[in-house]
Amino acid sequence: MPELRRDPVVGYWTIIATERSRRPVEYMPRGITEERICPFCEGRESHTTPEIFAIRKPGTATDAPGWDVRAITSKVPILSPLSASARSQDGIYDSMPGSGTHEILIESPRHTHSLDELSEAQIGKALVMYAERILALEKDGRYKYALLFKNHGLISGVGSDVIRHTRSQLIATPITPKRVKEEMAVSKAYHETTGRCVFCDTLAQESSEKTRVIHDGRFFTAFCPYASRSPFEIWIAPKTHSADFAKEDRARFGELSQIFKQSLSKLRRLLDDPPYNLILHTAPFGHPNAASYHWYFQIAPRLTHDAGFEWGTGIHINPTPPEEAAQILRECDASAA
Amino acid sequence: MPELRRDPVVGYWTIIATERSRRPVEYMPRGITEERICPFCEGRESHTTPEIFAIRKPGTATDAPGWDVRAITSKVPILSPLSASARSQDGIYDSMPGSGTHEILIESPRHTHSLDELSEAQIGKALVMYAERILALEKDGRYKYALLFKNHGLISGVGSDVIRHTRSQLIATPITPKRVKEEMAVSKAYHETTGRCVFCDTLAQESSEKTRVIHDGRFFTAFCPYASRSPFEIWIAPKTHSADFAKEDRARFGELSQIFKQSLSKLRRLLDDPPYNLILHTAPFGHPNAASYHWYFQIAPRLTHDAGFEWGTGIHINPTPPEEAAQILRECDASAA
Repeated sequence: MPELRRDPVVGYWTIIATERSRRPVEYMPRGITEERICPFCEGRESHTTPEIFAIRKPGTATDAPGWDVRAITSKVPILSPLSASARSQDGIYDSMPGSGTHEILIESPRHTHSLDELSEAQIGKALVMYAERILALEKDGRYKYALLFKNHGLISGVGSDVIRHTRSQLIATPITPKRVKEEMAVSKAYHETTGRCVFCDTLAQESSEKTRVIHDGRFFTAFCPYASRSPFEIWIAPKTHSADFAKEDRARFGELSQIFKQSLSKLRRLLDDPPYNLILHTAPFGHPNAASYHWYFQIAPRLTHDAGFEWGTGIHINPTPPEEAAQILRECDASAA
Repeated sequence: MPELRRDPVVGYWTIIATERSRRPVEYMPRGITEERICPFCEGRESHTTPEIFAIRKPGTATDAPGWDVRAITSKVPILSPLSASARSQDGIYDSMPGSGTHEILIESPRHTHSLDELSEAQIGKALVMYAERILALEKDGRYKYALLFKNHGLISGVGSDVIRHTRSQLIATPITPKRVKEEMAVSKAYHETTGRCVFCDTLAQESSEKTRVIHDGRFFTAFCPYASRSPFEIWIAPKTHSADFAKEDRARFGELSQIFKQSLSKLRRLLDDPPYNLILHTAPFGHPNAASYHWYFQIAPRLTHDAGFEWGTGIHINPTPPEEAAQILRECDASAA
């Protein structure tokens, strides 16, 4: 059973993933070969765990072909549902069972590698799946947060996942993660001082300065953040105040899909299909600070490696100023990708 | 000039390293070839910036052969000294010039790749160099913190550093890094509540439980921390309370060198010379919390990759429980490495 353990000094939590337990020899580098039979392709539904959500053609059956997007639980979950998630203490140490869920959100029935290769309509269905699954996990009541993310072109943190079929992951946790708490605390303090949302003020400044903006749409802005930790990092945020992605007006997903497709296509073209992480930052379940928080997608290309300095200080080093990155991204013709 | 920028939402700082500025094509993967003429070897002193510290054989001259360990400044510094480091503001954004120093601490006059291949006496000299340089930077008065770290077998965060000569880096910053502030805050709060040092309590529990201890010496303990974020992570800490590594009793460096050599040799043997980061956690300059903080070295093998989940939550996933790692490390015969 996975275990969540809290460090008594800095207060961070670690998942000790005992079900994926690895001996020294299992960490040795080895050749990556792509799995020959992709379990995520249409027609291979029996290779996966049972379907928990899908957008399907009328008249097609659960766990059968005929779907556009499909959600399942991971066969090697980082966290899995348990009846209890009580904390336990051993002297100075706190732990709790690794209770949660780990879902795989399959974004295409075909063996497509990249989200931006899909049509805008198909990306729109993926966005609806993200929102529906987050709403379902909030309603479940056992979790404090659900993180939606994508590891594109990366060997993931655990396990050598070599299936390239485009998908995201959704992990629900029994604690509000430290990174999320920090964001909530800073935006709440800003709101208490100024009466305004720190993200709304950021977006207003970006729209006015324009130097870091890639695309300023009707409902959403894509820009390179001022203190970008990754070169060519992109944030996509709604222009009007909105704390919870899952409750966003679905009528706006068309424009969001378009901006997603353009942003990711530009990155692929400019940086030769770089590995990247897509992370959704959205308010934790049942949080009371809707007035101060603001959701956004973070797209962080993985072009540099975090090493001792980043780990020891928390300060990242980015060799490409976001103003330069934004200019290059603005000038790039995504359609030629 | 490098610039430090603060994110208004989470409060993290990023170094925008304009002097290392890279265009998209410069991030493309390329073959790593080792530099043929190593500037860090004895006899190549003219290939480096001027020496700022050395332990030398009597009668030898600065910037000439005859040294055991030698410190220089980096030719491509992440931060460099400036007369001023005033913060400036642009609307919602804070920045400051990237004022600091970036030193390279060369640990051997010969082209040795690994710290643990050196003799204990030689490692002891490296430890003295670490301490002396930290003391010098504290005395300088312009900096809030100096981070000592080593990127072994890793392409560092910026620049493709392919010189394998064993060395560490020391970077002084004009701000106290977020990660350091967090550690200070938690240990201070613990001290105010209990009157005790959270690290001393941790070490006492480790010595009594023994399951995570690798080596329990007279002055130092090497153990796998309870919430290890990396598989086979090792912390080496003084058994008696001590907040500042640089002011540690030098008579104890002999035992510390021995534990270093053993710990690193065991990792090399078990994990086939894995990439790792060595990070010194020590109290910031002039801090008032000496009673609550406690220095330690963190050795973090880089066997897994941080991906979307780690970035989005701050929660790391470690597939090897520290109790298992400690047992394997205890049973490993370092001398056979």
